Amino acid sequence: MSEQELGITESKEYATGDWYAEVVQKAGLADYAPMGGFIVTKPRGYALWEALQDNLDGWFKDTGVDNAYFPMFIPESFLEREKDIVEGFDPEVAWVTQGGHEELEERLAVRPTSESIIAPFMADWVRSHRDLPLRLNQWCSVVRWEATETKPFFRTKEFLWQEGHTAHASEDGAWDETMLRLDQYERLFEDVLAIPVMRGRKPPHDKFPGAHTTTTVEALMPDGKSVQSATSHYLGTSFAEAFDITYTDEDEDEAVAHTTSWGLSWRALGALIMTHSDEQGLVVPPTVAPTQVAIVPIWQEDTKDEVLEYAEGIAEELEDAGISVDLDDRDERNPGFKFNEHELNGVPVRFEIGPNEVEDEEITVVHRPDGESIVEDREEIAETVEDHFDDVYDKLYEAAEENLEENVREADSAEEILGTIGQHRGYVKAPWCGDEACETAIKEKIAAEIVMCPLDRDVEPESDECAICGDEAHEVAYFAKSY
Amino acid sequence: MSEQELGITESKEYATGDWYAEVVQKAGLADYAPMGGFIVTKPRGYALWEALQDNLDGWFKDTGVDNAYFPMFIPESFLEREKDIVEGFDPEVAWVTQGGHEELEERLAVRPTSESIIAPFMADWVRSHRDLPLRLNQWCSVVRWEATETKPFFRTKEFLWQEGHTAHASEDGAWDETMLRLDQYERLFEDVLAIPVMRGRKPPHDKFPGAHTTTTVEALMPDGKSVQSATSHYLGTSFAEAFDITYTDEDEDEAVAHTTSWGLSWRALGALIMTHSDEQGLVVPPTVAPTQVAIVPIWQEDTKDEVLEYAEGIAEELEDAGISVDLDDRDERNPGFKFNEHELNGVPVRFEIGPNEVEDEEITVVHRPDGESIVEDREEIAETVEDHFDDVYDKLYEAAEENLEENVREADSAEEILGTIGQHRGYVKAPWCGDEACETAIKEKIAAEIVMCPLDRDVEPESDECAICGDEAHEVAYFAKSY
Ligand SMILES: [Zn+2]
Ligand SMILES: [Zn+2]
Repeated sequence: MSEQELGITESKEYATGDWYAEVVQKAGLADYAPMGGFIVTKPRGYALWEALQDNLDGWFKDTGVDNAYFPMFIPESFLEREKDIVEGFDPEVAWVTQGGHEELEERLAVRPTSESIIAPFMADWVRSHRDLPLRLNQWCSVVRWEATETKPFFRTKEFLWQEGHTAHASEDGAWDETMLRLDQYERLFEDVLAIPVMRGRKPPHDKFPGAHTTTTVEALMPDGKSVQSATSHYLGTSFAEAFDITYTDEDEDEAVAHTTSWGLSWRALGALIMTHSDEQGLVVPPTVAPTQVAIVPIWQEDTKDEVLEYAEGIAEELEDAGISVDLDDRDERNPGFKFNEHELNGVPVRFEIGPNEVEDEEITVVHRPDGESIVEDREEIAETVEDHFDDVYDKLYEAAEENLEENVREADSAEEILGTIGQHRGYVKAPWCGDEACETAIKEKIAAEIVMCPLDRDVEPESDECAICGDEAHEVAYFAKSY
Repeated sequence: MSEQELGITESKEYATGDWYAEVVQKAGLADYAPMGGFIVTKPRGYALWEALQDNLDGWFKDTGVDNAYFPMFIPESFLEREKDIVEGFDPEVAWVTQGGHEELEERLAVRPTSESIIAPFMADWVRSHRDLPLRLNQWCSVVRWEATETKPFFRTKEFLWQEGHTAHASEDGAWDETMLRLDQYERLFEDVLAIPVMRGRKPPHDKFPGAHTTTTVEALMPDGKSVQSATSHYLGTSFAEAFDITYTDEDEDEAVAHTTSWGLSWRALGALIMTHSDEQGLVVPPTVAPTQVAIVPIWQEDTKDEVLEYAEGIAEELEDAGISVDLDDRDERNPGFKFNEHELNGVPVRFEIGPNEVEDEEITVVHRPDGESIVEDREEIAETVEDHFDDVYDKLYEAAEENLEENVREADSAEEILGTIGQHRGYVKAPWCGDEACETAIKEKIAAEIVMCPLDRDVEPESDECAICGDEAHEVAYFAKSY
């Protein structure tokens, strides 16, 4: 890349969408595929996905989940079966109709989600209470044929995700599972991605079709829009009844299982990129950064050897400590170019090493998010750098937390909801009667919706009256514009 | 499962195909999907795939490979472009023709392999010699619409694999890459899967279309058939020319890159399962076993507490040492049933623990492959068990090696080739003129083919004359029946 190509030209504040698209491309996270709605995930973007997977997959396995793999195609008749209880994904399905030169007798859906192919196998595998709980997960890609503008990681026809599907003997077991997965999603955002989230449940009209309750973690983006970042569904017995997921209980009686499903997609990457990045490019926390430390040696001809030797020793020490480091000893680039490039690519910590550092046995440590520069002793640098990772993490988390805290507001009339969202975006809490029509009234005027209600159904609204219709308020609704 | 359902009923020797299918199903590795040609990979099968992935993916990353993800669909016009240099996969492609309720303007192929969508991006990303080598890999599923009988992991319309695609400035660089990946595949088989393999190259008429050279690792199955277990292709400049993968060299001249591709599919799992398993069920080495040790406590009412406590202490110690252990303390099953079940499921080492073991502070250790039983001290068991893992590995490897060594034979006439393969299966080495017609002559009579030739092109055939046609022999061909 030339100097010019390195720069982000769009404004994060005034043209968030364009800025985001520019960061994704210039930081080498993704490219647009030739077919509208598809992207190519480039190595740096995919490495972020792998880091996220490593964390979540480990927690899943530690808590009894087994990975499996189900076919990417689902016969139309299987999707139809699901229709008995839910509205199908029909309008969004990509259909395979030809295999080789032959027309298929039955169309095959490219999986939009896998309930309808997994549930029959769960029914087959569950016989006795001893087979429960059954916890399956798969990491795969899914396709939903939506005709919308492509936005990498946020809106694509094909996307990567994991989908968990579990069956339990009791309602309590299934509820605990639903909440355990929601906890793990929250942990991923708060402890790995440096993004505070709000936990809640979707309003009844916006649940996953057929679900008893859909829980969600919502993250507030810098432009004041909410991202539904992961969902965990308690499905009750509706899927188990439709697909005959039954078991013989301890008294040898036949019983219907309670099921859950839960999923997180690469939309989490979109939230990660958008939350922390800036007009110098990508910003990510050290917890997921493919390169955690960039070492930039600064030399003249007569100091090159000593500077490089010193830098190499440091790189080796970091690597031995399991830190991902890039010693940028390219001859053809000057230090300023290298600084810009590593900033663009989201390397969270930079070491600057010149003859002074060598002489004083020190290292100049620079934090990506804010450019803070600290001189550290060379000795025990592999330990010291971990403190810098923590500092960088905290800086990112705190900035996001501040944004969230400043942007939850209250309102008690439709006018106030509209005015507050219009002026500030963010979340607006309002007492709500529970009727979808009251959401529609807001949605029609400002394209904001109820993104969640508090998980605790006993949370009392501030007022007895629905902010929109004036009927009795039953709960608190969080209105926001959303991705 | 009942006692009865645990048993394998088919003969490995006399009905290898049926026996294999029975092991796959009863050991919980895979089920048949409702659509012919598709399977569901169950947790135990998928865990084997993950173990294999972990090893290979780590080696790839250690040697400069970046993972990426390309769309699962490829526009027909992109596949057509590849046709300029190779025969396409057309007859084997599953086509998406409808998205939602709309007919697509251009059919989309579900990827049968990704050269045609990856190469244009490589062309875009490679500008200067500084961008080389470019090494990309993706783990994904691919679809080939072949109308054959389903054989889990060996023959399925959808299968999981990795495909590596690299570009290099020089022929040497690309050749080194081709051989490095072949080495890593060999290492996977020999050091992880306990399967000795033969390295070779495919005869010219059986190369990957468009490739300069296709190299292969071949494994001999117990039924005397060869499995092409992974391939690594040196593509020369043909793909780079077709897709404009060019770069500016150090002298600022335009040059064409040399490319490679290399892949390994879940067929490797098929080879793993088939090689080691027996008529008690699955056998796998401890290197990949999802459960490495099953602890079966053997108690009477009056010894239950002490036996269980002792067993729990051992389980904990193994877990702390990073060993995957299953303490099978189920009340409702007797030890004999448990032994059978863990054998069926391929747990390589079993600990039997009764009151005697508790009293003597010992453990009875039993090896899955051959039932060998050794009494070990309780102390330092987490270290001792590693020696048993090595022993079990060696037993499996040596048995497979013996099978391979006994089954490479020589022949110098068509009659002898046919007779030897007919009687013994295995590999038959013969001098060969290089003409496909001579392979066809054999193939038509006994469904055996040339599975490889020695990698070293200077290996001299034993005789000057092609065993089949009598013309001058240029190389050595290995004939075998194959999967
Ligand atoms: Zn209302
Ligand atoms: Zn010949």
